[in-house]
Amino acid sequence: MNNTINIAVVGLGQVGIYLLNELNTKKKAIEHKTGKKIKVVAVSARNINKKRKFKIDKKIFFKNPLEIFKKKKVDILFEAIGLSDGISKKVVETALKKKINVITPNKALISKHGNNLAKIAEKNNINLEFEASVAGGIPILRSIKEGLATNKISKIYGILNGTSNYILSEMEDSNKNFADVLKKAQKLGYAEPSNPKLDLNGFDAFAKIRILSALSFNSKISKHKCLMEGIEKIELKDIIIASQLNLRIKLLGISELKNNQLFETVHPCLVSKKSYIGNVNGVMNAVILEGKPVGESILQGEGAGPGPTSSALLSDLLSILRGNIKKPFGVSVSKLKTLMNYNVNNYINSLYLRFEVKDQPGVLSQITNRLAKYKISIKRIIQTPDKKNNKATIIIITHKTSELNCNNCLSIFKSNKNVLKTPTLIRLLS
Amino acid sequence: MNNTINIAVVGLGQVGIYLLNELNTKKKAIEHKTGKKIKVVAVSARNINKKRKFKIDKKIFFKNPLEIFKKKKVDILFEAIGLSDGISKKVVETALKKKINVITPNKALISKHGNNLAKIAEKNNINLEFEASVAGGIPILRSIKEGLATNKISKIYGILNGTSNYILSEMEDSNKNFADVLKKAQKLGYAEPSNPKLDLNGFDAFAKIRILSALSFNSKISKHKCLMEGIEKIELKDIIIASQLNLRIKLLGISELKNNQLFETVHPCLVSKKSYIGNVNGVMNAVILEGKPVGESILQGEGAGPGPTSSALLSDLLSILRGNIKKPFGVSVSKLKTLMNYNVNNYINSLYLRFEVKDQPGVLSQITNRLAKYKISIKRIIQTPDKKNNKATIIIITHKTSELNCNNCLSIFKSNKNVLKTPTLIRLLS
Repeated sequence: MNNTINIAVVGLGQVGIYLLNELNTKKKAIEHKTGKKIKVVAVSARNINKKRKFKIDKKIFFKNPLEIFKKKKVDILFEAIGLSDGISKKVVETALKKKINVITPNKALISKHGNNLAKIAEKNNINLEFEASVAGGIPILRSIKEGLATNKISKIYGILNGTSNYILSEMEDSNKNFADVLKKAQKLGYAEPSNPKLDLNGFDAFAKIRILSALSFNSKISKHKCLMEGIEKIELKDIIIASQLNLRIKLLGISELKNNQLFETVHPCLVSKKSYIGNVNGVMNAVILEGKPVGESILQGEGAGPGPTSSALLSDLLSILRGNIKKPFGVSVSKLKTLMNYNVNNYINSLYLRFEVKDQPGVLSQITNRLAKYKISIKRIIQTPDKKNNKATIIIITHKTSELNCNNCLSIFKSNKNVLKTPTLIRLLS
Repeated sequence: MNNTINIAVVGLGQVGIYLLNELNTKKKAIEHKTGKKIKVVAVSARNINKKRKFKIDKKIFFKNPLEIFKKKKVDILFEAIGLSDGISKKVVETALKKKINVITPNKALISKHGNNLAKIAEKNNINLEFEASVAGGIPILRSIKEGLATNKISKIYGILNGTSNYILSEMEDSNKNFADVLKKAQKLGYAEPSNPKLDLNGFDAFAKIRILSALSFNSKISKHKCLMEGIEKIELKDIIIASQLNLRIKLLGISELKNNQLFETVHPCLVSKKSYIGNVNGVMNAVILEGKPVGESILQGEGAGPGPTSSALLSDLLSILRGNIKKPFGVSVSKLKTLMNYNVNNYINSLYLRFEVKDQPGVLSQITNRLAKYKISIKRIIQTPDKKNNKATIIIITHKTSELNCNNCLSIFKSNKNVLKTPTLIRLLS
C-alpha cells in the first residue's frame, strides 16, 4: 500500500454520512496512529441533493457506485447501503475482485453471502472487514477472532437489536403500548421510519447471530431454517405481568453447540430482573460468551446509531492501514466446519402462556386438561377476570417442556371458540 | 518466521504451568488457525522438582533462564515470573534485544518499565504483548488498541483486582470478617498464600490502571505519585452499614482526563447496589470505558486465575503467529504524550466517614463542629451505641468536598482522645 490511501464511501444514509465526517475530521489522528494519509476520492448515493447532516463534496459524487471502479483508483471501499443483495452485493463483490479492501456494517449481506465473499477476499489476499455488522459499540468480532482466539466457545448469546430493546424498556417505563412506543422510537431515530420490520421481527438479530456463530465455532455461516420470533406480538399486558413476577422481557439471540450440533435462535425471553441481562436496557446491546478456559465474558455497549457504528468501521480501517492482512472469519474459509443443525423440536424451556378466553365455566379446565395430556406440568396460574367484557386472561407458567410438545399442545386452541386469540408464548431463559 | 516456531516458557508457577499445558494440548488448534507449528524448546523455573499440576519435560529445563538464550533458538518467550525488576526484567530485556518476541502477564514489569521495553521492541521490529497483564478474561487492551482505536477516550475505570472483589463480596455474603475471608481466599487460590499484600493494598489494580491509561490516552506510562488505597482497612461493620444504605463497597481503579491532566487512582468506593458495577461480584473483573463516538462500553469477565490468564496469553501468541507486527502501545513510543498530573487535592467526592468514639456527651458535636469549620456539610448521620463497652460508632455521609478539605479536616482527630481510632473514610462514586 502507498502512503496515501484512497477511500470510497458508498451509501450516504445515517451511517455513511457520519462516517464520512469522521474520516474528514480524524485524518490527522489516523495518520498519527498508522503513518498513512487517507483521502476520500469517491462517494456515492442514490440522490445527490438529499438533505444531509454533513456536506458532501459533489466533485467526487457518483450516482452509480460501479462507475467508481472505472474512474478512480481505490484502496479501501466502505459499503453502507445495507441490502443483502442487489447493488450492495454487486459493489462489494466487484471491489473484492479488483483487490480493493472492503469494510461494511452490512449484516444482511454478510450473514447471507459471507462465505463466498470471504473466499474472494482470501483469494486476492485483501481484507473484508465487518466489525460494525454486529453490536457496533462492542468490539465483539475482533474479540472472538483475536482476544479470545484459542478459547473453545460453547455458547454465545445476548441482546443484539437495540430497537427492540429500546421498545421493550420504554413500554415498561412509560406504561405505553407497542404502537405508541414504536412511533416514539421512529421519531428518535431508533427505529426505521419507513420499514422497521426487520428490527422487530427478529431478522436483524438473527443475521447477527449467524455471524457470531461462524466466528465462535469456526464454522460456515449456516443456512438452516431456525426458530425466529420478534417482539411484534408482545403486549403491554405481558410486560406488566412479567414485572409483577419479577421478570423482564428481552429479545435474545442465542447460538449454542448442543451435542456438536448448531442451535441458533432469536426469540423474546423472560429473564430475572435481578440478572445481568435483565438490566441491559434502552438501546444497549450486550453479548455474553461462554468459553474455555476464559469462563464467562460479557461485553456491553451501544449497539446501534451512527456513532458506535462509525467507531467499529474506523477500527476496521485502522486494522487495514496497519497492514494486518486477515482472514475475514479468522481462519481460511476452506477450514471452516459445516455444522449439523440441532433439531428445534428438542429445545426445552419453561413457558409463559397467556390465554385470552371467554369468562365461562369449564374454560380453564379445557386448557389445563390439554396441558396435562401433553405432560406439560404447571408451575403457576394467574387468572384475571375482565367482567365488563365477559372475558378473562389466564397466565400459565409451565415447568420445562420441549418445543414439539408445546406446539402440539397449543395447536388445538386455534379451533377452540372459548379461546379468543392465539395464545401468547414467551420462553423463560433457562 | 519459519513454519515451526520455537517457544520458551520462563516461570512455572500457577500461570506458567497452566500455559505450558495449554500450549501442548492446543498445538493442533493453533496450527489450524495460523498455519504455524509451535514447539516448546525450553522451560525455566527456580525449582525443577517442585510439585506441579502438569508434568514438565526435564530435558528442556533450565534453572537459569538466561542460559536459554545461549543454548536454544527461541522465537517467542513467555515471561511468567512476575517481578517488576530483577530476573523478570533481565529476561525480557535480553529477549527483546535478541529480537525474540515477548509475551507476558506481568503488570508490575510493564507498568514500571513498559515505556523502555516498548522502545526496544519497536527498534527491533518485534512484538512485546501484555494482554494478560490487565483483567485476563477480558480482551481489554486489544479492544482499546484495535476495536475502539479511533475513539477519544475520556475515562476508564472498573474492578481490576479479583482478589479484593472476592473478599468484599464474600464478607457481605458470609458475614465474616476480613481476616477469616482472606484465609478462605488463600485456601481457594484467589489470594497469594505467602504475601497477598500487593492485591490488598491496591498496588495490583494500580499497575493495571497505569497500563490502561497509557493505552487509552496515547500517553507514556506515568510515574506520578497518586492516591492509592486498598481494602485492608475495610471492616465487616462498613460492609453491613453500606448494605443498609443500599450501597456496596468495591475497590475501583479509575483513570480520567480532567482538563487534559491525568488523574489516576485506586481506592474503595461506595456504589449503588442497583448499579451495574455494584453487581460485579466475586472474582469477576469489569472495565467501563467512556469514549467518543462509541459512548459507554462495558467489558466483564473473570479477571484472574490461570484459565483466563492463559486465554489472554494465547491470544497474544496467535496475534504474533499471524504475523501482526504491532507497536506495544498502539502507536510508536516516540509519539506517546507526557501528560501533566491532576492535583489530587482537587478530587471531589461525597464521603462515608466512620468514627469509633467514647460514648460521652459532646463527642458528636466535636466532630460536627470540625466538619462545619471545613464547610463539609452533612447529608446523613447514623449513631449506634455500644453501651457495654461505653463506645459508639458514628457514621457520617457528607455532601461533596475536596480531598484537601477532607484531609485537613480529619487530621485533628488523631490527637482527639475521644476518637478511639483513625476514622475510616470511603468515597462515594460520583
